[in-house]
Amino acid sequence: MNEGFDSAAFLAERLEWIAANRPLIHHITNLVVMNETANLTLCLGASPVMAHAAAEVEEMAAQAGALVLNMGTPYPELEEAMCAAGKAANRAGVPVVFDPVGAGATAYRTRVAHRLLEEVRFAAVRGNAAEIACLAGEAAEIRGVDSLSFAGDAAAMATGLAVSLGCVVAVTGKTDVVSDGSRLARVNNGHELLGKVTGTGCMATTAVAVLLASGEPHLEAATAALALFGLAGERAAELAGTPGSFHVEIYNQAYELASGHAPLAGLRVELENAG
Amino acid sequence: MNEGFDSAAFLAERLEWIAANRPLIHHITNLVVMNETANLTLCLGASPVMAHAAAEVEEMAAQAGALVLNMGTPYPELEEAMCAAGKAANRAGVPVVFDPVGAGATAYRTRVAHRLLEEVRFAAVRGNAAEIACLAGEAAEIRGVDSLSFAGDAAAMATGLAVSLGCVVAVTGKTDVVSDGSRLARVNNGHELLGKVTGTGCMATTAVAVLLASGEPHLEAATAALALFGLAGERAAELAGTPGSFHVEIYNQAYELASGHAPLAGLRVELENAG
Amino acid sequence: MNEGFDSAAFLAERLEWIAANRPLIHHITNLVVMNETANLTLCLGASPVMAHAAAEVEEMAAQAGALVLNMGTPYPELEEAMCAAGKAANRAGVPVVFDPVGAGATAYRTRVAHRLLEEVRFAAVRGNAAEIACLAGEAAEIRGVDSLSFAGDAAAMATGLAVSLGCVVAVTGKTDVVSDGSRLARVNNGHELLGKVTGTGCMATTAVAVLLASGEPHLEAATAALALFGLAGERAAELAGTPGSFHVEIYNQAYELASGHAPLAGLRVELENAG
Repeated sequence: MNEGFDSAAFLAERLEWIAANRPLIHHITNLVVMNETANLTLCLGASPVMAHAAAEVEEMAAQAGALVLNMGTPYPELEEAMCAAGKAANRAGVPVVFDPVGAGATAYRTRVAHRLLEEVRFAAVRGNAAEIACLAGEAAEIRGVDSLSFAGDAAAMATGLAVSLGCVVAVTGKTDVVSDGSRLARVNNGHELLGKVTGTGCMATTAVAVLLASGEPHLEAATAALALFGLAGERAAELAGTPGSFHVEIYNQAYELASGHAPLAGLRVELENAG
Repeated sequence: MNEGFDSAAFLAERLEWIAANRPLIHHITNLVVMNETANLTLCLGASPVMAHAAAEVEEMAAQAGALVLNMGTPYPELEEAMCAAGKAANRAGVPVVFDPVGAGATAYRTRVAHRLLEEVRFAAVRGNAAEIACLAGEAAEIRGVDSLSFAGDAAAMATGLAVSLGCVVAVTGKTDVVSDGSRLARVNNGHELLGKVTGTGCMATTAVAVLLASGEPHLEAATAALALFGLAGERAAELAGTPGSFHVEIYNQAYELASGHAPLAGLRVELENAG
Repeated sequence: MNEGFDSAAFLAERLEWIAANRPLIHHITNLVVMNETANLTLCLGASPVMAHAAAEVEEMAAQAGALVLNMGTPYPELEEAMCAAGKAANRAGVPVVFDPVGAGATAYRTRVAHRLLEEVRFAAVRGNAAEIACLAGEAAEIRGVDSLSFAGDAAAMATGLAVSLGCVVAVTGKTDVVSDGSRLARVNNGHELLGKVTGTGCMATTAVAVLLASGEPHLEAATAALALFGLAGERAAELAGTPGSFHVEIYNQAYELASGHAPLAGLRVELENAG
């Protein structure tokens, strides 16, 4: 069923490369999770930089191993910076990861999301079901940044959007589905306490960017990243049952897994042909 | 003395409603505490969203269960966004909570605070004695965001401002006083370590907004919120005597209290007629 | 060798003064570490304020005990605010500390750094080897905010820049070197886990500002601050071996050391004449 994809072996090799090369992960992200995503980047062995001035984003993006565009707190200057950085990353061959936080919640967010999809060629897009539905033109209900209802088929939606965008699309939820248009992966790692800490979706996107910085194939890299982050959440929940301590443990466990101090055991990934 | 106000029973019922309905708490807040207030919102069972672009704040505020306007790091675009969002919330009947951080510390902050009071109809205002004195036109000394001295009567000041604004006013300190103009509550929960973690005043304001999202009467809701947050601080201090661990425990204990895992015992609230 | 500089006695006296006077530390800093540097300021006994609106920075800076200008996420409005606040602090005799985060990583950051050096008279500058090399016009390699390589002599570079700027210059790394142009200090406190938490360099700068707020001589104050922060890192690493818990322990241990609950033992400072 897994078509020969050994996610633990894949991750072990990629994490070793990341530790040795410390790729720069350029974030243009929301104001809520800057510290948190920078710290996760460090825990995974890469090097974060947060930079959003129009005057420097193109130069910074071109040096990066991957670029994250996260629209959690959009405003006009950030929107312009995201477009400019995304295009510069495209020119330089740097993979760009998109997190359409709250797409669909307001007309402005929907507009920003669609503009980015038009102007930037993404390597991966990660969102909850309602956010991805907004991008895919499917019906869903969102309130703030929470997906309230999506009655469709997440796997079909991910596959359809992956085909139309020509990139990897991840719909995260109880089970994450990840598609590159022809193949589909499911990840069953994670824990409900992740919903009690703000920015864990943004952190998952950062994990995807760190793994994409280690090279293709992007479907495997994105899938392994989501499994790794979900596993860190599970291990954190074993040690801490309340949100404050759980939040601290996410970093501890991501670091333990990424640095080889804890075994990559418990990854629950299935990979299949989509057709 | 408590005029029949059983704060524990009130909180238990409201927290159950909040958990079931997950009201959206729209924050336009300072850049220091975005992550912290979002996490407290989640711990209390509600759903945070941070959004401050002029292009979306009116639409977001109108969907919210409550709106927080916190001027801790004011700048012109944020000032305009706060005014626009506040007015939209007023039109939609969404309660608006104001935290006048640092009012009186600079002429600009004082101006922003008075402009917001003129343009927006608040459901509750929470600040330290010097901040509220700045709003009420009384004498006080503030440095940065710390109230240095206020020689007046906090209860009388809260009552007077509550009458003139037509809303609930809370002056927090060793004892919190909360007035709706005709009735006065005192809250004796809290711990001095709260002064060693930045943004705990902002978190108290967020707690007030979460409880106000559960409905009227606002005096009881705001009072219960401050008692709940203070009690979480006390319980956190029992487990952690230094600021880093104490900060983590605030979330843990707020979550334990709000989710019913820990009893709402130890609330110290007195409610009386103001006159 | 230490020319009579007893760093523990110096720190004990200064920390007592800081606790008694709670100097205001005005930060105009990057969006990643606002909460973290505010919390460290509180742990050290001082009072943080974050304010960056052009309309208030001059008034706020003039009231402060020290001003931090940290260019970790520069953008035009912040650049203007830093210049205006720096000049106001200069007029008021308030010491200004500069953290040139990422100088050299993009042309824009280099430009901002050089502009600040021209327009503001600093009391101290703290950065990693590559950042300081950018200011000093020496060769170095930087990627994002990480110093990748510097083949020169950090002590000679610090001394040369201290002479040309007329202020204290600190180059932090495995060993920190601090110069006022005529004397040189070396600090051997710290721990490699500090590199696994974002913003620990920014926190070190904040510690320098807190100590400078207690008065001259600035060389001793900056040196003692770096030793104190490094010692907090060492003590934190004894209690926590992974980044999440280590981050929490930094605040705990800084607080314990600054409040006199833990002895100031283990400071490793050498002070000598530079010539």
